[in-house]
Amino acid sequence: MQLGQLGQLGMIGLGRMGADMVRRLTKGGLQCIAYDVQPAAVDKLKQDGVAGAASLEDLVAQLQKPRAVWLMVPAAVVDKTLENLVPLLEPGDIVIDGGNSYYHDDIRRGADLAQRGLHYVDVGTSGGVAGRERGYCLMIGGETEVVKRLEPIFSTLAPGAGAAPATPGRAAGVSTADQGFLHCGPQGAGHFVKMVHNGIEYGMMAAYAEGLNILRHADAGKHAREADAETSPLRRPELYQYELNLAEVTEVWRRGSVIGSWLLDLIAGSLCSDADLQNYAGRVSDSGEGRWTVAAAIDEGVPTPVLSAALFARFSSRGDADFANRVLSAMRHDFGGHVEKAATPADGHTR
Amino acid sequence: MQLGQLGQLGMIGLGRMGADMVRRLTKGGLQCIAYDVQPAAVDKLKQDGVAGAASLEDLVAQLQKPRAVWLMVPAAVVDKTLENLVPLLEPGDIVIDGGNSYYHDDIRRGADLAQRGLHYVDVGTSGGVAGRERGYCLMIGGETEVVKRLEPIFSTLAPGAGAAPATPGRAAGVSTADQGFLHCGPQGAGHFVKMVHNGIEYGMMAAYAEGLNILRHADAGKHAREADAETSPLRRPELYQYELNLAEVTEVWRRGSVIGSWLLDLIAGSLCSDADLQNYAGRVSDSGEGRWTVAAAIDEGVPTPVLSAALFARFSSRGDADFANRVLSAMRHDFGGHVEKAATPADGHTR
Amino acid sequence: MQLGQLGQLGMIGLGRMGADMVRRLTKGGLQCIAYDVQPAAVDKLKQDGVAGAASLEDLVAQLQKPRAVWLMVPAAVVDKTLENLVPLLEPGDIVIDGGNSYYHDDIRRGADLAQRGLHYVDVGTSGGVAGRERGYCLMIGGETEVVKRLEPIFSTLAPGAGAAPATPGRAAGVSTADQGFLHCGPQGAGHFVKMVHNGIEYGMMAAYAEGLNILRHADAGKHAREADAETSPLRRPELYQYELNLAEVTEVWRRGSVIGSWLLDLIAGSLCSDADLQNYAGRVSDSGEGRWTVAAAIDEGVPTPVLSAALFARFSSRGDADFANRVLSAMRHDFGGHVEKAATPADGHTR
Amino acid sequence: MQLGQLGQLGMIGLGRMGADMVRRLTKGGLQCIAYDVQPAAVDKLKQDGVAGAASLEDLVAQLQKPRAVWLMVPAAVVDKTLENLVPLLEPGDIVIDGGNSYYHDDIRRGADLAQRGLHYVDVGTSGGVAGRERGYCLMIGGETEVVKRLEPIFSTLAPGAGAAPATPGRAAGVSTADQGFLHCGPQGAGHFVKMVHNGIEYGMMAAYAEGLNILRHADAGKHAREADAETSPLRRPELYQYELNLAEVTEVWRRGSVIGSWLLDLIAGSLCSDADLQNYAGRVSDSGEGRWTVAAAIDEGVPTPVLSAALFARFSSRGDADFANRVLSAMRHDFGGHVEKAATPADGHTR
Repeated sequence: MQLGQLGQLGMIGLGRMGADMVRRLTKGGLQCIAYDVQPAAVDKLKQDGVAGAASLEDLVAQLQKPRAVWLMVPAAVVDKTLENLVPLLEPGDIVIDGGNSYYHDDIRRGADLAQRGLHYVDVGTSGGVAGRERGYCLMIGGETEVVKRLEPIFSTLAPGAGAAPATPGRAAGVSTADQGFLHCGPQGAGHFVKMVHNGIEYGMMAAYAEGLNILRHADAGKHAREADAETSPLRRPELYQYELNLAEVTEVWRRGSVIGSWLLDLIAGSLCSDADLQNYAGRVSDSGEGRWTVAAAIDEGVPTPVLSAALFARFSSRGDADFANRVLSAMRHDFGGHVEKAATPADGHTR
Repeated sequence: MQLGQLGQLGMIGLGRMGADMVRRLTKGGLQCIAYDVQPAAVDKLKQDGVAGAASLEDLVAQLQKPRAVWLMVPAAVVDKTLENLVPLLEPGDIVIDGGNSYYHDDIRRGADLAQRGLHYVDVGTSGGVAGRERGYCLMIGGETEVVKRLEPIFSTLAPGAGAAPATPGRAAGVSTADQGFLHCGPQGAGHFVKMVHNGIEYGMMAAYAEGLNILRHADAGKHAREADAETSPLRRPELYQYELNLAEVTEVWRRGSVIGSWLLDLIAGSLCSDADLQNYAGRVSDSGEGRWTVAAAIDEGVPTPVLSAALFARFSSRGDADFANRVLSAMRHDFGGHVEKAATPADGHTR
Repeated sequence: MQLGQLGQLGMIGLGRMGADMVRRLTKGGLQCIAYDVQPAAVDKLKQDGVAGAASLEDLVAQLQKPRAVWLMVPAAVVDKTLENLVPLLEPGDIVIDGGNSYYHDDIRRGADLAQRGLHYVDVGTSGGVAGRERGYCLMIGGETEVVKRLEPIFSTLAPGAGAAPATPGRAAGVSTADQGFLHCGPQGAGHFVKMVHNGIEYGMMAAYAEGLNILRHADAGKHAREADAETSPLRRPELYQYELNLAEVTEVWRRGSVIGSWLLDLIAGSLCSDADLQNYAGRVSDSGEGRWTVAAAIDEGVPTPVLSAALFARFSSRGDADFANRVLSAMRHDFGGHVEKAATPADGHTR
Repeated sequence: MQLGQLGQLGMIGLGRMGADMVRRLTKGGLQCIAYDVQPAAVDKLKQDGVAGAASLEDLVAQLQKPRAVWLMVPAAVVDKTLENLVPLLEPGDIVIDGGNSYYHDDIRRGADLAQRGLHYVDVGTSGGVAGRERGYCLMIGGETEVVKRLEPIFSTLAPGAGAAPATPGRAAGVSTADQGFLHCGPQGAGHFVKMVHNGIEYGMMAAYAEGLNILRHADAGKHAREADAETSPLRRPELYQYELNLAEVTEVWRRGSVIGSWLLDLIAGSLCSDADLQNYAGRVSDSGEGRWTVAAAIDEGVPTPVLSAALFARFSSRGDADFANRVLSAMRHDFGGHVEKAATPADGHTR
């Protein structure tokens, strides 16, 4: 198999991410055959001039050998998809999992597929809904030769070197990292690095969120706080008299500050259109990588007080601390006769 | 002034704590004059045979010189009470603040009163509603001679040496600590030690509460968790099939375990009568000492990840993280197109 | 098999815990056959009048059928011990793992042994070196009938109802929890509850440790802090002038305070003989249960900010945050030109 | 006084930041008079063609009325500098504090200076050593009219609108935030926002640092871990076999990923030249803002588990947890007979 052959890719899973990636690859001159369990998703891409497949069998038939098939499906259905796909493939074919799989599964799947002569590559894909335009950051695990053969695909999906200024002092050609994709190591390494990437993301997001919450309550001194035995008084209300415009504060931080980032750009945009973020209830989901990151840290014996605090804040946002809190109130009642206070307005903020 | 004279004490503030302390002192053979801004509170103690005062003036008039007056009022009204009381006192008199004052205030008040020849003693008082029977643990700050003169009062309020087994190897007479009261240092030292005591209390309480919450959800594998992109699946539900009886678990820990404590005794009692703690909503108050403890740690440069996590969990229980959580949901929406999920049943527990 | 028969137990593993448990059982009138891979450990118990075994075969031969064999060996060698022991046993025999096994292993072992007609019981054992005198708190998982048959053993090891005052309102006979042992649920439940018990222990220990560290540095205002751009000045040194005697402070807390506990009794004893704890370097080990507790919380989606902070503080105490800290220093250098400061005296405390 | 007049500024403090700001202002066409207590610092700027002053008196004499004087000195010497400067000024003059002052001090100073008819403006300045080229992000507190008059200075120091893409949907002219400077509110508001900015910075930095530490130890399974009772074994070493190149991983994250940021750019640069960061010992300083941020959060009742964990990790990196850790080891010894283990190689990493 030669490098040139790999101008072709089968894509399974045409959700938001998968469909956009097909569009970016097609625009970049690569031929994609697109398949989804929902025929409507295939039809939509066909209208954009992409070749579609009516079934897995059809997809496999349309691909030149050795084939390269990219899965972009929810982590929970990867195994089921492989169950149907693998019998259709032949030795030398490559399966790529570009979703959010747990790297434990990559290691298991890689071994399983190897027994059939198939190659397995795991790709952690970051970029979200902006990826179609910005390109995707790709963290890749798998056999070196196989990853090398897929380079045309990776380099088309990735943002390219121009997306960021060169790192001073970095020697040219060390790796493809400066183009936005990197072969990190053997199977599972891609999703391992992506997992930690997301763990860091949790921490960064929480840092911004907590800071903005402090700024939002900088007017605490303007609101009379009840003075009873169950409430700690604000000793110096004159120090908390600021009414800050968070949309403007985040906007100013976007230029020249130490905490500038793409996440900050997004926050500034959100606050600009919805200053109180009333479109959200504040029940924050987590889709696995944050949990796995902390679990890995525990296995390794690496302290992650910040990443875990960020994870647990999400759990709490969904009410998962409720019973623990009731235990606290019960104790307070029993040793001190303290009675719970009624709720105050949403987020304790009277604006 | 001699030691023998201090069989007499004026008590201002006959709330739960103050009234019980008067009863314990009276039972211990000390004479108390009791006063409260609520005449009914005075009347109630009078029925128990305690001498009452109709006003601050009356209280001061009834006390032998040099007087000892104990304030057992909310921290927020100590200064106002002193404003009225101090002009009535004479040089050599002693004012004791046995409430939950911030030690910063003790230092200021001690200096103010000294200018009038008055002595100021701060006493951190632990024991809660059980103190009348068990005795109170007293952490004391003030001038050595003055504290010494008050020993009959302290030793009557304190539980006494018999309340706990002797510490092996502890030399007799080092201090009065083994009787349950201790002169910790100059003014403010009593409330400083009590502040940290309460900070530790927050941490211990949270440790129990979090652990019990884990036990409560040990049946997580029995509840189907939704399998969508916003929810991290439980990979091995067979590991979470336990339905634990928390009342019995806490009961068994009371004997022979490493985590036995008075707080655990209270939890076991609560869970025994209300297994789901449905009497509580889980809005946990904090009355200041936990905040001051962390603030002191920050001033000192001492890391307190556990005590601060316990404090912040209380804030969150009252909805004070809401805006931060909305910021997180807004970011997730903007980079990944994630939509918030609706709420699940209270505490995510379907029992 | 009848209840009366279970006056006999084979004990494998005569380390500190195992040997003491044999002594307590023997004193309580139960017959033990003791075995250890180290013959010297067996000999030592023989001198105390306990029957010893020279090999696993010998142990099994000396036990009446159906046999009950208790393993008290490090978690890491349980599987190897079972490998040798199980072939010697017969259907109906009972194997008890009283060590610190991960409950995942209990579930697996229970299933394996069931295939041979053997019963498996997991017992979380708390009590430490004091257990021989105080009794052991036992958290038990396994089949109901089997656990019932072992009650004479459990009740002899446990502290008994007299070890703590009765919980007010607790109905008699609900379970054996008030005697200090409890059948928590099916296989694994005992070690699951013990795991969380240890997780709580980590949190409580950290709460005390952090609080005491704040008290120790209450004299921060007495030590000139360098005033350079890399050091945050202490704004009000007059507030940190206390030199507290921690041995006496912990002693006074032992009577009447809210934070009294057995752990506090131990701390008071340690500080009494070694005020600065110079016998310790502060490298704190963790032997697994704390990690597993947090991992379980993550699986369940239960927030445990306090228990995880306690765990991570132990990791950090052993230097496992070092690389992360170097990353921080590198960033500070690169954006702000900050240069690392040299180390100050041990624990930043000049006393 | 008209806008046009403010083409002139006196700068006090010619350290790294102050000198670079003078250069940027000069390059932008504004006239600066530069002063420092170190004559050499003044001379250096003179060589670049900047006007220098030999003393505060000289500086004030050279400035046109009403004067604008910018202080860029360590927070600890602001008050002392004002003591000398203020008597030289006249009503209508403006003093700007562009350093890292605590906003409490701004409020006090603003009131003090107002009594003399002087205006006080506080400016939180972010940008570090890169600011001269990139421009500085300026967060400003003070009287609206006064801030307005200083706009030529602010807009010259700031990066300008071109430094970041426009926020979609943001209306033009809402504020100057999109140019990189913002009038946040009354006196103190600038440093308040900068304080929280730095608090967020601590959290972001810690998120990266912890994540990279996990990646660094992804080879944990390759290193035999001791199997003793004091060490938790790594249950599945086959999952930790990755040897990741952190310089390349951070490089790839710079393009297209969700966690891209300027801080990440810096880390990638550091790791590129010093893969193990051996130039650093990992003793991380904190210069105040992180502490003040958490203190403000506590005052406001806002939970900041992530920001505080980041702060405390810095304290711990300097050994400030040592005594707490010794307390933990003492407890472990006393209840379980555990003995501390000796140290392993630096950062527990054998590479």
